[in-house]
Amino acid sequence: MTLPKLSADELHRLLGGEFPQMFGAKGALSIERLEQRGCRVRQAFRANTLRPGGTISGVAMMSLADVTMYIAVLAAIGWVPLAVTTNLSINFLRKPGPRDLLAECRLLKLGKRLAVGEVTIFSDGMEEPVAHATTTYSIRRQTDSRW
Amino acid sequence: MTLPKLSADELHRLLGGEFPQMFGAKGALSIERLEQRGCRVRQAFRANTLRPGGTISGVAMMSLADVTMYIAVLAAIGWVPLAVTTNLSINFLRKPGPRDLLAECRLLKLGKRLAVGEVTIFSDGMEEPVAHATTTYSIRRQTDSRW
Amino acid sequence: MTLPKLSADELHRLLGGEFPQMFGAKGALSIERLEQRGCRVRQAFRANTLRPGGTISGVAMMSLADVTMYIAVLAAIGWVPLAVTTNLSINFLRKPGPRDLLAECRLLKLGKRLAVGEVTIFSDGMEEPVAHATTTYSIRRQTDSRW
Amino acid sequence: MTLPKLSADELHRLLGGEFPQMFGAKGALSIERLEQRGCRVRQAFRANTLRPGGTISGVAMMSLADVTMYIAVLAAIGWVPLAVTTNLSINFLRKPGPRDLLAECRLLKLGKRLAVGEVTIFSDGMEEPVAHATTTYSIRRQTDSRW
Repeated sequence: MTLPKLSADELHRLLGGEFPQMFGAKGALSIERLEQRGCRVRQAFRANTLRPGGTISGVAMMSLADVTMYIAVLAAIGWVPLAVTTNLSINFLRKPGPRDLLAECRLLKLGKRLAVGEVTIFSDGMEEPVAHATTTYSIRRQTDSRW
Repeated sequence: MTLPKLSADELHRLLGGEFPQMFGAKGALSIERLEQRGCRVRQAFRANTLRPGGTISGVAMMSLADVTMYIAVLAAIGWVPLAVTTNLSINFLRKPGPRDLLAECRLLKLGKRLAVGEVTIFSDGMEEPVAHATTTYSIRRQTDSRW
Repeated sequence: MTLPKLSADELHRLLGGEFPQMFGAKGALSIERLEQRGCRVRQAFRANTLRPGGTISGVAMMSLADVTMYIAVLAAIGWVPLAVTTNLSINFLRKPGPRDLLAECRLLKLGKRLAVGEVTIFSDGMEEPVAHATTTYSIRRQTDSRW
Repeated sequence: MTLPKLSADELHRLLGGEFPQMFGAKGALSIERLEQRGCRVRQAFRANTLRPGGTISGVAMMSLADVTMYIAVLAAIGWVPLAVTTNLSINFLRKPGPRDLLAECRLLKLGKRLAVGEVTIFSDGMEEPVAHATTTYSIRRQTDSRW
């Protein structure tokens, strides 16, 4: 069985160095599970993500989908800070109330140049998803001068 | 447990009446499994879907993704021929060789007006998916004059 | 010729009441042009949207695409706070440097229940777009009890 | 001013060799305009694309969107048969009646590895679009052993 190239602890530490506002002591994000081809990430509820009507903003869900896929890619290929999102497509399914969000990513393809994954987002304690995204990352190796 | 509103046999018969070239005796499509919130559909290999290089065309996969979602919607809400695709987004992951394709649909949302689902397409006998689509159907009830 | 149902000033005032952090005196967003089927919105540069490497975050662009479409919908149909995003699909094309972003929206469809538009995002002073999004809003009239 | 790398006539001839059923004497497709960063393609009406209700199938529009982008890519970079679609996202806006379809493609990005474009599809003689797609092609040079 192939293991993730990085452990959840290592990734937390590395991401906390690069994105302290998201993964540091005050950050809302934590990695709950890491597999070779997927992961689960929790985004703690923050009042500043609420919109009129008491639901969490779409932007907070898009941001969570994007970072969850980034984590899945890093776990699969190692620390490659040259992976960039090229496409993200999200369907908003239900309005999430003021609770934590849980994002589950499954890698659909991990090629040499492109990684594709899907992310399903749940409101903590609810069974039906609140959003579903598919996203593509372009991977550039450090030795690769082309883009 | 909630059952599908239509059985696979009923759906085959109804769809064969409307789309004889797809579901009739000569059609390539067959419903392999029907659940309350999803289904699996087989598309038998046809030589006319091959492209130069010996792979099945993207159009054949887009068509399969669309009809598989349609079957899942009909199974869930009954025979409502007024459901129309409003969005389809597909990622092509690997090139499928000359074999049957299997499409697995999971409904993500079944609202009064919109149904959203994801479809993962496999090449028969292979483990990794060859394509993944998300798609939205707009549902119009017969009593509904608005669009 | 059909005019927008709301002027840019009216919209600024209404949106500033609902989203003071985005449209108020300290907000980064301003409506530069409003047409019957489209608009242009400027997002002033803010240092907190920068990512490592000195480029503006994808989340800032997704947020801008979403709000620009919302403005175009409100301008076309009037103040209907029940419009919600159901789908947003974005392609990231180039990395925007530390400058204002300009988003141009064109409505592709304005139905009774769904509005579809495309948004092209530019980095101020550059000719090539940095991102392109298509997005769908579901419109619910206040007299409409269905969803 | 930069010209297309191939003329419409050259492309017709090359595509007719590879896809005779689409571009040959009996094919439905013709290139109406070719620019350095876009093109317009006509798909002649064929009765076998009609669906119950008298509208052209979504599959016919997806196929047209895909091939129109392919033509725009080839015109921009030359005859590179190794360009493959990686993503196609389409919104169906209105139901097209039994007429020719016109597809207009605009390249949004032409990188060394990825090309992104948008395609707007019209029903001949109508002003409002019937569908809008964005699509990504992955470009592999013949000297490129990586994928």
